Amino acid sequence: MTPYLEAHSAQVREAAERIRPHVRRTPSLTTDLDPELRLKPECFQVTGSFKVRGAFNAILTLAAQQPMPAGFIAVSSGNHAQAVALAAATVGLPALVLIPEGSNPAKVAATRALGAEVIQEGITFVTREQRLREEMAARGLTMVHPFDDWNVIHGQGTAALELLEDSPDLQVIAAPLGGGGLLSGTAISAKSHDPAVRVIGVEPAVADDAYRSWKAGTIQTLAATPQTLADGVRTTAIGTRTFEVMFAQGLVDEVVLVTEEEIAAAVRVAWSRLHLALEPTGALPLAAYLSGKLPAGRTGLILSGGNANLETVATLLRTP
Amino acid sequence: MTPYLEAHSAQVREAAERIRPHVRRTPSLTTDLDPELRLKPECFQVTGSFKVRGAFNAILTLAAQQPMPAGFIAVSSGNHAQAVALAAATVGLPALVLIPEGSNPAKVAATRALGAEVIQEGITFVTREQRLREEMAARGLTMVHPFDDWNVIHGQGTAALELLEDSPDLQVIAAPLGGGGLLSGTAISAKSHDPAVRVIGVEPAVADDAYRSWKAGTIQTLAATPQTLADGVRTTAIGTRTFEVMFAQGLVDEVVLVTEEEIAAAVRVAWSRLHLALEPTGALPLAAYLSGKLPAGRTGLILSGGNANLETVATLLRTP
Repeated sequence: MTPYLEAHSAQVREAAERIRPHVRRTPSLTTDLDPELRLKPECFQVTGSFKVRGAFNAILTLAAQQPMPAGFIAVSSGNHAQAVALAAATVGLPALVLIPEGSNPAKVAATRALGAEVIQEGITFVTREQRLREEMAARGLTMVHPFDDWNVIHGQGTAALELLEDSPDLQVIAAPLGGGGLLSGTAISAKSHDPAVRVIGVEPAVADDAYRSWKAGTIQTLAATPQTLADGVRTTAIGTRTFEVMFAQGLVDEVVLVTEEEIAAAVRVAWSRLHLALEPTGALPLAAYLSGKLPAGRTGLILSGGNANLETVATLLRTP
Repeated sequence: MTPYLEAHSAQVREAAERIRPHVRRTPSLTTDLDPELRLKPECFQVTGSFKVRGAFNAILTLAAQQPMPAGFIAVSSGNHAQAVALAAATVGLPALVLIPEGSNPAKVAATRALGAEVIQEGITFVTREQRLREEMAARGLTMVHPFDDWNVIHGQGTAALELLEDSPDLQVIAAPLGGGGLLSGTAISAKSHDPAVRVIGVEPAVADDAYRSWKAGTIQTLAATPQTLADGVRTTAIGTRTFEVMFAQGLVDEVVLVTEEEIAAAVRVAWSRLHLALEPTGALPLAAYLSGKLPAGRTGLILSGGNANLETVATLLRTP
């Protein structure tokens, strides 16, 4: 194992200890689809997605420092917002979340219910970075980045750590790929467990910036926010840290693209045959599996969350 | 412990050993709803419902006898059909399943896909008993009753056995109540674990025959097949064996009725907040919990299955 991988995998194990009292150890599931398949359903995680793993690791670490932060700020259209809200409330510090207008109202309501202040007015995917800097400066808040933050990456790696504890002989692990936090953490856990495990990121074809970054060897950026069913991976570019882990260090073997139709079909299979109420983003690895785009072998799918827009899902269930 | 309870609980433990290679040990889940709650999601069981537990216990027992049965026959509108089809195929014997016309087409297709012969033409809830006797006589098939059969009852009891292994300190256990097979097995496992555990059956108010049987002390029969969202509990009367376990022996403490609105609300909560794609029957105990109809205390809910009619669920998800 390289010193790089050794250091990062030690930090994932430290993260697992740090967040243990606050997150849920989700089960590994077998299915009627294929005896080679293992699912890690993070829809059963606290707040309904894996995002609490990284948010708790970051916020517990920051809150233990002197001087203690005044509070936290995050930009998120969804699950990271709820995760930061809960972790901040747990350590007794305020959280401000900037959520772009037009985001899933259920996720906004859940974030407010967890005690965070939410600003939506005037927030767009274009204006949010500027607004973030203004609010940070005005209030002295500490940012919790949704993916390009080492504490977040190490926290997200605990999902694959658990999956590999339950199924040490996995040959393939696939996870959704947006900003790359979950996939980077997954790759650190998988490659430190066994360098032969194939680590695959699954990205919507209409949001292929990570795929193109992998091919180009430099970070590629989408010109506009992609319109995909998988609303958890609408970031326009991966981060410098996640690029480093995934592609510069080569811990990710492959990026696979799935179409919107393949994502929709995977949601239907998840809901009707696996009985998992996944959000479309959470179904990305299943979409790649069902489309025959993953390598053969004993395969673990990290199904990242379940906070679906019910109107969208009701429509999908009616489509044959 | 009474000799009666001791004998039956020993048979549940034997059933657990017998069926272990063929069924799935479903996980116990905690939730964001209530720290006192434990879920046993049998939607993740092989074929999507608990019914394989009883069907495998019955069919493995019968297939080991001499002379070996010629094959098996069952009457079912749903999950029992798939369970018998799979268990019969596993022991290499034929299965004939009579499914009433108008039943959920997905369940019919799944039963055929598992290798069973299915007869639907001319089968109604009124004619099916007569047709069953004719086919049994003509083909020499052995019946696997969906609930009023000791092997089936003991097999169903293995779900609560696992739940209590995971959470030995439960104070309340609730299960759906139709013919009473699952609830009888649950009661045997719970009361032999700890007589103080409160065992609750949950029945739709529009199908209240078991509730009335509990109150009257004799088996009461509905005049017609009830129209309830919970299509897994449309039986018109419980059986003599399940009446004995639940009410004559007093192993069930209470029967709770839930309205159709409460069932619909529970399905929505299951799908949107618990991320479990339950069928309405599987959500019955959750409906009782959410309506405040269960006793206080650490509570286990046996969520019996997930084979929902997608059209029905799509409609429910759209209803606020």
